[in-house]
Amino acid sequence: MACCGRCFCCQCCCREGETRTPEELTILGEIPDEEQILPRKDYESLDYDRCISEPYVEVLEGMDNKKAKKYEAVHWMMVFVIGVTVGLLGLFVDFFVRLFNKLKFTVVGDSIEKCSDKGCLSLSLLELLAFNMTFVFIASVLVLIEPVAAGSGIPEIKSYLNGVKIPGIVRLRTFLCKAAGVLFSVAGGLFVGKEGPMIHSGAIVGAGLPQFQSITFRKIKFDFPYFRSDRDKRDFVSAGAAAGVAAAFGAPIGGTLFSLEEGSSFWNQALTWKVLFCSMSATFTLNFFRSGINFSKWGSFQLPGLLNFGEFKCPDGDKNCHLWTAVDLAFFVLMGVVGGLLGALFNCMNKYLAKYRIRHIHPKAKFIRVLESLLVTMVTTIVIFAASMLGECRDLSTPTAHNTTLAGSEDINSTIRQFFCSNKTYNDMATLFFNPQEAAIHQLFHQDGTFSPVTLSVFFFLYFLLACWTYGVSVPSGLFVPSLLCGAAFGRLVANVLKVKLGMDIYSGTFALIGAAAFLGGVVRMTISLTVILIESTNEITYGLPIMITLMVAKWTGDFFNKGIYDIHIQLRGVPLLEWETEVEMDRLTASDIMETNLTYVYPHTRVQSLVSILRTTVYHAFPVVTENRQNERDFMKGNILISNNIHFKKSSVVSRAGEQRRRCQSMKSYPSSELRNVCDEQSAAVEPSEEGEDLLQQMLERRHAPYPNLYPDQSPSEEWTMEERFRPLTFHGLILRSQLVNLLIRGVCYAENQSSTNQPRLSYAEMTEDYPRYPDIHDLDLTLLSPRMIVDVTPYMNPCPYTVSPNARISQVFNLFRTMGLRHLPVVNAVGEIVGIITRHNLTHEFLVAKLRQHYITI
Amino acid sequence: MACCGRCFCCQCCCREGETRTPEELTILGEIPDEEQILPRKDYESLDYDRCISEPYVEVLEGMDNKKAKKYEAVHWMMVFVIGVTVGLLGLFVDFFVRLFNKLKFTVVGDSIEKCSDKGCLSLSLLELLAFNMTFVFIASVLVLIEPVAAGSGIPEIKSYLNGVKIPGIVRLRTFLCKAAGVLFSVAGGLFVGKEGPMIHSGAIVGAGLPQFQSITFRKIKFDFPYFRSDRDKRDFVSAGAAAGVAAAFGAPIGGTLFSLEEGSSFWNQALTWKVLFCSMSATFTLNFFRSGINFSKWGSFQLPGLLNFGEFKCPDGDKNCHLWTAVDLAFFVLMGVVGGLLGALFNCMNKYLAKYRIRHIHPKAKFIRVLESLLVTMVTTIVIFAASMLGECRDLSTPTAHNTTLAGSEDINSTIRQFFCSNKTYNDMATLFFNPQEAAIHQLFHQDGTFSPVTLSVFFFLYFLLACWTYGVSVPSGLFVPSLLCGAAFGRLVANVLKVKLGMDIYSGTFALIGAAAFLGGVVRMTISLTVILIESTNEITYGLPIMITLMVAKWTGDFFNKGIYDIHIQLRGVPLLEWETEVEMDRLTASDIMETNLTYVYPHTRVQSLVSILRTTVYHAFPVVTENRQNERDFMKGNILISNNIHFKKSSVVSRAGEQRRRCQSMKSYPSSELRNVCDEQSAAVEPSEEGEDLLQQMLERRHAPYPNLYPDQSPSEEWTMEERFRPLTFHGLILRSQLVNLLIRGVCYAENQSSTNQPRLSYAEMTEDYPRYPDIHDLDLTLLSPRMIVDVTPYMNPCPYTVSPNARISQVFNLFRTMGLRHLPVVNAVGEIVGIITRHNLTHEFLVAKLRQHYITI
Repeated sequence: MACCGRCFCCQCCCREGETRTPEELTILGEIPDEEQILPRKDYESLDYDRCISEPYVEVLEGMDNKKAKKYEAVHWMMVFVIGVTVGLLGLFVDFFVRLFNKLKFTVVGDSIEKCSDKGCLSLSLLELLAFNMTFVFIASVLVLIEPVAAGSGIPEIKSYLNGVKIPGIVRLRTFLCKAAGVLFSVAGGLFVGKEGPMIHSGAIVGAGLPQFQSITFRKIKFDFPYFRSDRDKRDFVSAGAAAGVAAAFGAPIGGTLFSLEEGSSFWNQALTWKVLFCSMSATFTLNFFRSGINFSKWGSFQLPGLLNFGEFKCPDGDKNCHLWTAVDLAFFVLMGVVGGLLGALFNCMNKYLAKYRIRHIHPKAKFIRVLESLLVTMVTTIVIFAASMLGECRDLSTPTAHNTTLAGSEDINSTIRQFFCSNKTYNDMATLFFNPQEAAIHQLFHQDGTFSPVTLSVFFFLYFLLACWTYGVSVPSGLFVPSLLCGAAFGRLVANVLKVKLGMDIYSGTFALIGAAAFLGGVVRMTISLTVILIESTNEITYGLPIMITLMVAKWTGDFFNKGIYDIHIQLRGVPLLEWETEVEMDRLTASDIMETNLTYVYPHTRVQSLVSILRTTVYHAFPVVTENRQNERDFMKGNILISNNIHFKKSSVVSRAGEQRRRCQSMKSYPSSELRNVCDEQSAAVEPSEEGEDLLQQMLERRHAPYPNLYPDQSPSEEWTMEERFRPLTFHGLILRSQLVNLLIRGVCYAENQSSTNQPRLSYAEMTEDYPRYPDIHDLDLTLLSPRMIVDVTPYMNPCPYTVSPNARISQVFNLFRTMGLRHLPVVNAVGEIVGIITRHNLTHEFLVAKLRQHYITI
Repeated sequence: MACCGRCFCCQCCCREGETRTPEELTILGEIPDEEQILPRKDYESLDYDRCISEPYVEVLEGMDNKKAKKYEAVHWMMVFVIGVTVGLLGLFVDFFVRLFNKLKFTVVGDSIEKCSDKGCLSLSLLELLAFNMTFVFIASVLVLIEPVAAGSGIPEIKSYLNGVKIPGIVRLRTFLCKAAGVLFSVAGGLFVGKEGPMIHSGAIVGAGLPQFQSITFRKIKFDFPYFRSDRDKRDFVSAGAAAGVAAAFGAPIGGTLFSLEEGSSFWNQALTWKVLFCSMSATFTLNFFRSGINFSKWGSFQLPGLLNFGEFKCPDGDKNCHLWTAVDLAFFVLMGVVGGLLGALFNCMNKYLAKYRIRHIHPKAKFIRVLESLLVTMVTTIVIFAASMLGECRDLSTPTAHNTTLAGSEDINSTIRQFFCSNKTYNDMATLFFNPQEAAIHQLFHQDGTFSPVTLSVFFFLYFLLACWTYGVSVPSGLFVPSLLCGAAFGRLVANVLKVKLGMDIYSGTFALIGAAAFLGGVVRMTISLTVILIESTNEITYGLPIMITLMVAKWTGDFFNKGIYDIHIQLRGVPLLEWETEVEMDRLTASDIMETNLTYVYPHTRVQSLVSILRTTVYHAFPVVTENRQNERDFMKGNILISNNIHFKKSSVVSRAGEQRRRCQSMKSYPSSELRNVCDEQSAAVEPSEEGEDLLQQMLERRHAPYPNLYPDQSPSEEWTMEERFRPLTFHGLILRSQLVNLLIRGVCYAENQSSTNQPRLSYAEMTEDYPRYPDIHDLDLTLLSPRMIVDVTPYMNPCPYTVSPNARISQVFNLFRTMGLRHLPVVNAVGEIVGIITRHNLTHEFLVAKLRQHYITI
């Protein structure tokens, strides 16, 4: 019955009365689809486009090239500081994770060594459990403080760079919880990486540092309106995220491409160059300090990123050894397919798990989440311990020259584990499980000694399941390293089979690397940035082709089944993400098919009471500023001051060709052409320009009058209105944001009815943006000081010339404009300058377009 | 007097009568400034935006996702083929250059070895001269055949990717002359590189291959309108150019970034991924064949690019050796400054030389250019020969383990020259001069033996002057390798001083590399792509920071004096290049300040005679389709069929909010909301929609009438018109290109006055684009078959919804839209939908904006 009531209108106006498809119903918001999670309407867009309002123009006028250069220099410095900070952050994380891990493995390792003789292994297990549970408990509690700090943070950063504002994502508290939490979740032995959280933390540093500087050190003022806007913040976040990647993988170019791939839809050259500089700063800061601390060689640069893959190199003497050959490529393609399948399986399982968590765990008390983390930790620890006991003892290969000089990383044989094995052998399972994950990856990539196929299979299977279960638990948790390790085991397994069983002459490390790439590619489905990150991590350009082909095949295979893990989690949150481009089929729709036609608008001059009621009764974030097209406007001008002001604004806002030409003639700004000579001559000689201009505007005004009843601001709509009265033609003049309107009201920017609008106080740009990024809410306002009859002139503060589209524009055109320019609201304006609708991010999401297309097919 | 006459109009209408600044005069086209070369008006833009005309929509309607996927697959295949072809091209160039060089150096080398005892050195010189002059003569003649093939081709490709159509730049003939010519110019011993021509050739392959395929193999039809448009061609050219870089330097990522930096102003994800794939294909094709041919190791991949820098590596035993340390960074910055200064000097000298050539050589007979090439060759040859005799004899270092295993390149000691030196020593000058340039670079980077400071200084000085003289001679000539070699000598000189004189513990190769980067950066001023190219060429990620810092400093230092060499040559050609962004100061101007107000327009329905006369008397490439705003339009509709058709079109083209809302109600497409319920209800119940709609349009029409005389198509303008009559308000409906209009006329798309416009023949999309890219000229047309009184309905073929801007939009906004969307014409439309001007590339060039800004300052 409830449904029926809500359907009422629709059924009334749609005589066809046919049954609806689920998609339509979902769009109409009637029945929330249990399976499909639709983009939520409450996510806002960031505002990448600049609002060229009058205060901003004032700032521009005061801006010369010298100031611009100074500002540019500050921007570079800022970017450098961000890079260095992110580098230091990486150092901090690395240092403590190493410390905790060393502590843990030393204590527990010693205990095992002793107990394997004495038979007190359960004691060792308890020790390990105690360590891990404590660490994870701390991580989990930190996430309770700031729930946004859970997970890898890449979905959030991806959403942010895509242009969606997610509350709390770049706050200081999130930063602290994330950076501290990841230490403990990694040290706690969970199958999580620290790379994702590093990227998120880097992004927060990028968002925060420039703000911090301008709030605390008030002295440093730039007179330039960039640092306090979404546009600037997003640029800095790009730089910070890139620096995060650069620090995590030692991949500055990959980091830059990551930011570009995920975020900036347009290639801003200057920005890219800064982002690369920021990434470089981060990588080399980290490199400098790590090399200094670890090797006491201050000034040398030997340890690029937190995660590096070591050097892939044939033994020096062996001329027949190749890292890979053309024949291997065929295997790489096959491994890509398998990696894609495994990744799809991983994503599918994780999606169901995440849905289960949303439905059954998140609604419950918060400590349940902590318990879940502890449960995962316990199971993981026990599995690690038990599996380690089952490992085979393999012969220790004699350290070759190659192994001892692994550029900048420890000796590969220092991380093998001999648990339960005799002197010259080692326990292969324990070597993989009983080490930090980075060490295990190194083992799989570079250990000349073999791992038994059984060990590798068991390891892969257990790791796959546990990593899948872990991702989504409420601790800070990256996914890169677990995926790499899991994939490396798979790759090494393939190498084992090919080398030992088929006797092929291959380089095992390459296969392990390709396996890692295949699985990681199958899970995250990133393209160009992942390729470059992996190439840079291996520091071997010749791996370019195999890595790229593997990633391509893995992505294509995986995309056949589902989306990448990050996209899945973004979708589960209902973030209205915009894809790179629309499907070709969508071009059957036009802007008028998808726009929102129910407009709430304001007039250039509006009473305070109207503004307040509009702000309080709607949730829109922007309002078009319009005037109505009506008959005999001149009559009105004599009466109500409000109406006459609005009409006057309208008159003055229309630039005409003749007026423009006259201005040029007068101000010497035209190309003289013979055709124009007489005109210019005659006009400038004969006519008094100002009066003529006035007259022209008058004429222009008279050309337009509407056949609608004389309704104007402050007349409340009546129930008897016809559709023509309700949807009067409205000439579009500009856009004003909710935050701007609220700001005007707070600061009492208005004039009394008996005054001229020039008496209205003027706000500077600094005053307009002072409260950025958290503007006050209209409901928190005390408006008793304002007379409701006062009039607000919004025209100086609105954006007078946002980008617009025609109602007939195709979706691809609209989409490109919206995404490329980073818009938040896109007015749809028809051929005679009337606004007929407005398009926001929500009108361009894939789900919305698909539903609209379906309706399009039904109606034709 | 002539000037005075042309000034007449201007002086008349500008009463101020003040003297003009040179800039203004230049803009006005009065006195061509001798010094400053302004962008030429005859360069056209490419059309990156899609024209969504009706034939295109038809194609779209026939397009489903399956077809789109098929098309996508073809696109990938195409890109792969381009990559492979460019790789093979690189192989071809490399093979023949090696062959010629080997031939030459063997013959002449043997002769010198013999003659240094016998004293017949002049004979050797003559042999060398004969070789070089013959080779260069051939190269020069090839360039005579196709003058566009001269130079490096990078300025041309840069212009093309920036969106400027340069005639002949991507033709097959250019390709053949360039690819063959570069063999001979390099083999001829000139100080030129083969990298620039490789990039240009790659771009031509990219432009040509997809076209070739669709013309010759008619069977392969895609029913998709992408392959035959500027948009698609430019995408393929991006891929081809990237592949060229990738093949030349073994730098697939650098190639991709090169294409992005120079070209695509927006980050099209899918395209980037394809471009990277194309680059990878090129690199590895080349790698595969070179490894196979040179080492007979088919299937291994050991020789990445034509130019690679060898492996920078400390000797194995030396634990204290570092490639670079933090202290070195300070020297790198200084070297960057010096590199920037040297680069600026180089550019400055080359600019004067180029100007001299334009003024004194180009106007003369063509064989003069050949003579110049031969003169340069002769001088270069003699200098090489004479300098080699002056070299010092240095001790040969014993080959270390490092030197013998240089990954994939020949032994470094195989290219030293012992001319005039005893057995265990070598001639350092001859080693540098008497080798292919790549070998000389290798020597400077990796030779452990020393070069004397005097030799390095002399080498640098001679090379600098000769390379500067050579660039611009009419042979295909790259600039990368000469700059690298020149810079490497400078860097090695610095290293010598630091190491030998100051006794510092540094790695000479790094300094040579940084010197090369500094000089190259100072000359070409590329940023991100050059960084990545150099990093990839060294295959050593740790060089990232020093290279980047050096390039940054070099660029900033150089930019203080002049532009990069490519930009200088682009400017000398007068290409209207668009920068990355406008200066902040330009935001004081608005769109109305810079737009072209003299519009030549067509009506939706126009007579053939008017169209022909418009096309024959103007040179515009696009015409806005407009209707006039006039009084009592209804009266007109009864009369002339032409006028009534135009008015009818206007009526039907306006989408109104009420109409849109009604459509939605009827077609079930609205979100029902309580507010709308009554309206929908009442409307759909009470009113017959079609008639109401008709009425509404009528009303809307009546709202608009102009106070101007009743002039309409076919009424010729009279001299007595006032400005208001000349600049009547024109409602904007769309844009139609010259090529489209000519095509319509050729194919007789029109209807007779007594017919309905629906009788007009319809063209398909294939027919519309059949003649791409060379559309027929209006002056070549035989129009005797067409009756001049026939009427053409252009509305199905125009672009009904191009992007538009408001006259008040700031320059940065206009510029971003124009550049990012790859537009060719940007109509300026005011608040009531009237077109007031049009903006093209020429209105956005730096020179034009600067002049406009100056005028702006004068008038305020």
